[in-house]
Amino acid sequence: MTDLNYKLDIAYDGAKYNGWQRQKKANVTIQGKIESVLSKLYNEEIKIIGSGRTDGGVHALNQVANYHTDKTYDVDYIKTYLNNYLPEDIIIRDVVKKDNRFHSRFNAKSKTYIYKIWKKEAIELPLFERKYVYQVDSALNISLMREAAKLLEGEHDFKGFSSDKTKKSTIRTINSINIIEDENEILFEINGDGFLYNMVRIVVGTLLEISWGKRDIRTIDSIFNNKIRQEAGFTAPPNALFLKEVVY
Amino acid sequence: MTDLNYKLDIAYDGAKYNGWQRQKKANVTIQGKIESVLSKLYNEEIKIIGSGRTDGGVHALNQVANYHTDKTYDVDYIKTYLNNYLPEDIIIRDVVKKDNRFHSRFNAKSKTYIYKIWKKEAIELPLFERKYVYQVDSALNISLMREAAKLLEGEHDFKGFSSDKTKKSTIRTINSINIIEDENEILFEINGDGFLYNMVRIVVGTLLEISWGKRDIRTIDSIFNNKIRQEAGFTAPPNALFLKEVVY
Repeated sequence: MTDLNYKLDIAYDGAKYNGWQRQKKANVTIQGKIESVLSKLYNEEIKIIGSGRTDGGVHALNQVANYHTDKTYDVDYIKTYLNNYLPEDIIIRDVVKKDNRFHSRFNAKSKTYIYKIWKKEAIELPLFERKYVYQVDSALNISLMREAAKLLEGEHDFKGFSSDKTKKSTIRTINSINIIEDENEILFEINGDGFLYNMVRIVVGTLLEISWGKRDIRTIDSIFNNKIRQEAGFTAPPNALFLKEVVY
Repeated sequence: MTDLNYKLDIAYDGAKYNGWQRQKKANVTIQGKIESVLSKLYNEEIKIIGSGRTDGGVHALNQVANYHTDKTYDVDYIKTYLNNYLPEDIIIRDVVKKDNRFHSRFNAKSKTYIYKIWKKEAIELPLFERKYVYQVDSALNISLMREAAKLLEGEHDFKGFSSDKTKKSTIRTINSINIIEDENEILFEINGDGFLYNMVRIVVGTLLEISWGKRDIRTIDSIFNNKIRQEAGFTAPPNALFLKEVVY
């Protein structure tokens, strides 16, 4: 029996979904939708392995998953079939045949997320973008946030920056946090080797609270030391967060 | 009593509205929403004059309206008040005090609409753009559409290209139709001195049908001559149409 391994590049608008991961309850998830169409295509149960979860309401410009099968179908046929049967808020950007060892989670070297803030002092209110940005109602201090972001870079125990209840390691490396500003938006671009549950949103929430003077920049060190979620900032809303890229 | 005249620059996502124009029935319209907030601000009934109607589901990047009042309020205050109380799918881009003779409909020299087609052969399916484009399911012939568009330019009786039942003049001038293509989209940019009910959508529908070989390019002349709506193409869907600019 041949074992074939296919990689999917996936984009989605997460607004209507309870996140990426299939759940036992009747919730609607991205993974669940894709598995259901794949299982119809192959006429057997197909499970996909995602590079990682995204929270409910979070979007992806490029999420990666893979699955194994023993049926040989043309990659263009698989892509077309999936796009025909998936809802219009999930699209398959690419289907690639990989060697059998490829694993979208274990082989991921890093991930990049972006978080979109609509500035208080923006020239215009967001209109067509309004569902995909977080509108803040006071001005932000970019240089202070950049200074705080530097403290987050590197290898740290991010337990305090997470809603994870896991007993596994909560040590992660943030390779870079770039903060890019234009006349309307502030973009946080965060690359790291992995992210805990809610971690990107809590990192953004903490940077915002530092910027607003609600907390001192030195609290970052004490969050790392004390590892207590309550010491970190709020969880920024999911609708402005996008998984941009998974790097292998 | 002072007579003050204010011009509003307005952008909206028309998806949830029964078009621009206030209606006697309980329908929800852009004009109705803005008048209702203005009437609250001024504590008296305010009527606004739009540059023209847009159909249900059609958007505006910049629609223009004006209204008269005898109360002096600061333009920034008016803008902030409107944006605070209007729903998030209608935004006031600017409020400007004009001299009393300014009339947003009578003084409009021309209008520009854009219509967004998502190509069959696009590199990707539309995701975040999906509600604002018309996805066609066969390839389009740009040079043929450009040739046909040339026949539509100039002063003509556009009665056949309209759902108008009016007995007023149906003679209009289309100054230009530009067809712009990128890897995913085809954009129709149409500038004219005025447009009849459904006219832009029927012009686009007719160009599409010529492109698809469903009708000959010579039917344009016979639609002008016979002035019969049934001879023209279908009414392209409203969700991909944007009023881009009103020129004074």
